[in-house]
Amino acid sequence: MGFYLNQDRNIVIIGCGAGGGTAAQFARKTDRKAKIAVFEKGKYPQYSKCGLPYTISGEIPNILDLIEFNEEWFKKANIDLLLETTVEKIDVNKQIVYAKKGNNSIEKHYDSLIICTGAKPSIPPIQDVKVDGVFVVRTIDDAEKILSSVKKDGHATIVGAGLIGLEMADNLRKKGMKITVVEALSRILANNLDEDMVKIVAERIPEDITVFTNHLATRIKSTNGKISKVIIKNKESGEEKEIDSDLLIIATGTKPDVELAKSIGCKIGITGGIIVNNQCETSIKDVYSVGDCTEYLDFVTAKPTLIGLGSIVVRQGVAAGVNAAGGDYELFKGVLNTCTSKFFGVEIATVGPTSDRIDDDFSVVTGRFNGSSLPGYYPGGKPVSVKVLVDKPTGMIMGAQCVGDKAAQRINTFACAIIGELDIETFRKLETAYAPSIAPTLDTVTLVCDIISMKLKRK
Amino acid sequence: MGFYLNQDRNIVIIGCGAGGGTAAQFARKTDRKAKIAVFEKGKYPQYSKCGLPYTISGEIPNILDLIEFNEEWFKKANIDLLLETTVEKIDVNKQIVYAKKGNNSIEKHYDSLIICTGAKPSIPPIQDVKVDGVFVVRTIDDAEKILSSVKKDGHATIVGAGLIGLEMADNLRKKGMKITVVEALSRILANNLDEDMVKIVAERIPEDITVFTNHLATRIKSTNGKISKVIIKNKESGEEKEIDSDLLIIATGTKPDVELAKSIGCKIGITGGIIVNNQCETSIKDVYSVGDCTEYLDFVTAKPTLIGLGSIVVRQGVAAGVNAAGGDYELFKGVLNTCTSKFFGVEIATVGPTSDRIDDDFSVVTGRFNGSSLPGYYPGGKPVSVKVLVDKPTGMIMGAQCVGDKAAQRINTFACAIIGELDIETFRKLETAYAPSIAPTLDTVTLVCDIISMKLKRK
Repeated sequence: MGFYLNQDRNIVIIGCGAGGGTAAQFARKTDRKAKIAVFEKGKYPQYSKCGLPYTISGEIPNILDLIEFNEEWFKKANIDLLLETTVEKIDVNKQIVYAKKGNNSIEKHYDSLIICTGAKPSIPPIQDVKVDGVFVVRTIDDAEKILSSVKKDGHATIVGAGLIGLEMADNLRKKGMKITVVEALSRILANNLDEDMVKIVAERIPEDITVFTNHLATRIKSTNGKISKVIIKNKESGEEKEIDSDLLIIATGTKPDVELAKSIGCKIGITGGIIVNNQCETSIKDVYSVGDCTEYLDFVTAKPTLIGLGSIVVRQGVAAGVNAAGGDYELFKGVLNTCTSKFFGVEIATVGPTSDRIDDDFSVVTGRFNGSSLPGYYPGGKPVSVKVLVDKPTGMIMGAQCVGDKAAQRINTFACAIIGELDIETFRKLETAYAPSIAPTLDTVTLVCDIISMKLKRK
Repeated sequence: MGFYLNQDRNIVIIGCGAGGGTAAQFARKTDRKAKIAVFEKGKYPQYSKCGLPYTISGEIPNILDLIEFNEEWFKKANIDLLLETTVEKIDVNKQIVYAKKGNNSIEKHYDSLIICTGAKPSIPPIQDVKVDGVFVVRTIDDAEKILSSVKKDGHATIVGAGLIGLEMADNLRKKGMKITVVEALSRILANNLDEDMVKIVAERIPEDITVFTNHLATRIKSTNGKISKVIIKNKESGEEKEIDSDLLIIATGTKPDVELAKSIGCKIGITGGIIVNNQCETSIKDVYSVGDCTEYLDFVTAKPTLIGLGSIVVRQGVAAGVNAAGGDYELFKGVLNTCTSKFFGVEIATVGPTSDRIDDDFSVVTGRFNGSSLPGYYPGGKPVSVKVLVDKPTGMIMGAQCVGDKAAQRINTFACAIIGELDIETFRKLETAYAPSIAPTLDTVTLVCDIISMKLKRK
């Protein structure tokens, strides 16, 4: 290394989403002298994809508000940001990235490379899907197109009743659109909540929203190249229905974009994501990867899982940025998939796997408690339902789901219990904060654990 | 024990506050056949003392709403509730409690006795304090008397700027009274928050409230036996001031009522509270004690501490009730003093000791972060400040203080970290729930820990 002591480190980052942007920021914090370049194929630097649905209702008034770090910020941080620049090839031996910006070819040597190529929307096989008025929700461009198609009293159909599907349903409804949601699985939010918890959410979905579960969108009818109807089919009976649709949102998940990583031989995991260790290193020396293109261990199930949450991507970005710049940052030894959202005035939050996602080799005891946010004597208490999943042999908390008041913060407490590897007997004695106007003496988060404790003692 | 197998257990509970009432309830759950008697010297069964301030503003519209378990409930649970009944003597050898209800003498044999005598208001030495219009806030009777003295545009003075003092200030202000708060210590909330955190609260106290810290209330002036002014004195300069006062609230804490326990030889601790173990047993066989009359170990400092929080009292009540009825329930091995309140629209919450309360033999590193409840791009974010106290040699979290949005639930997460004995390096990587409308990708609860981590690494 002697020769290079006076030579500044070259860090190249491919992709300026939440992962790449955060990595650039923390690389700069770690090494003030490093030469940092970020190649981004889109028009904008790091912005919040999760914020896109709220630009539709106007809750976030200006789409460009989503940009968290603008070009000026990168300039001030002395980070070379190249927008609308596509990486075409990486030579791992020479440590060179080859890119194109318009007609200009760019060659850039790296000492550390961070691949943040993200994910692409996963589009189900819908016949004639390529017509005007069919959208995904991944980019600022997508949101702008959706916005220009929104019209009061128009019909919006959403395919996919996960978090983004329901967020879009809520925000389009706020613009006065009539909403139909189509979900292939037997329940909404199937990846997030157990069936009994979904029921609580479903009860709060406004009556003017039509939800078809167990239905596939199979075909699109259009008029003058623009969508007019969606044909949906009942998966069991085969019965078809025509749904008036002035616009269609496809929100059926994503798949990791790993082409570049694959081209240089990075190991890809069984989930289809790039395998990274707890320092965000890939299987190739000096190549890191971060974000929706990667997989990591699920802390509870100890199985690989795709990264699909902004919160995790940012944490990976910190790790990759610090490490690529010569620092030392270890991620926690697995992801919890702590997650939250709010639609139709109902907040939900979860941590750990749902019951469906836990293998049969685990023996799980669950409990659910429907409580109130406030003591009974204080007016204005709101419903809070909590479900907890516990590993029977060890009593350890594996996951929790909450619907209702302050769900996110309540679930954070369970996230802490999981990383602390607390068993249910310890956690249920947690001394929670109490005040008449804020929370009851015994909060739902521990009352639900009393139920599980009793079940475990009964055996 | 053979002789007694068919004989039902006699459980006698002295005091029907939150501790005694809960103990009765859990004794009944544990032993359906036990004979349970509760002696309560007041007029009402278990009610929420913490709710009293909110009956003043009318937020809780009816004082009797505070009664959580009424006489009918006790009847249905087959628990013998004797109100307005004063215990005069306990014979530990014969296991008999002697009480008086009006002119009737009562003798009751017990197999298990639970002493829940609570605490008495601690009244500072104010000259001529015994006049009309001077109140404490401990009972329904107190609240009724205060309510009848409240008048719009009248002057209310509050001595003591702890949680109850400030709750009373807020609620009396909502009734249109002009408020003066007098505090002997150098800051408000001195038992709850560090000085820097108090500053954040102090900034949000409405301008029409006058707060005198470092002042003693020394004397009361009255007209026709009714208070008209309070004389207060600057502790440093000795300067005196007259404060117009139509009513005066004394909220300067309590001292444990241990006379009965002392009379039978229960060991009393250095705090003045009855010593109990993790099963709520006193030093006398078959005698339990619960609530504000007891002391227990502070989990963080490992020193005895008085119990003064309803949340802890209820947990003790569960333990004493179960154990007195022959079950087996262990309290967590110490108290955290997790606590919350809200006044003037500001929520505060704390867990563990404040910096002042940690002995010099600890070496403590602290950090504070003033964050927002929401990501920057989402409108409506509210301030959240979190301070965390960490044991330098071990990195373990000792305490946390929060002012702002969802402070209670954020502090519950730290409470979990404390019982899980998590160090700051683990906790700061906690994967918190993120959604644009709910919380940022990195929440204040972990950002503050990054600051401490850096301080610890710098050494």
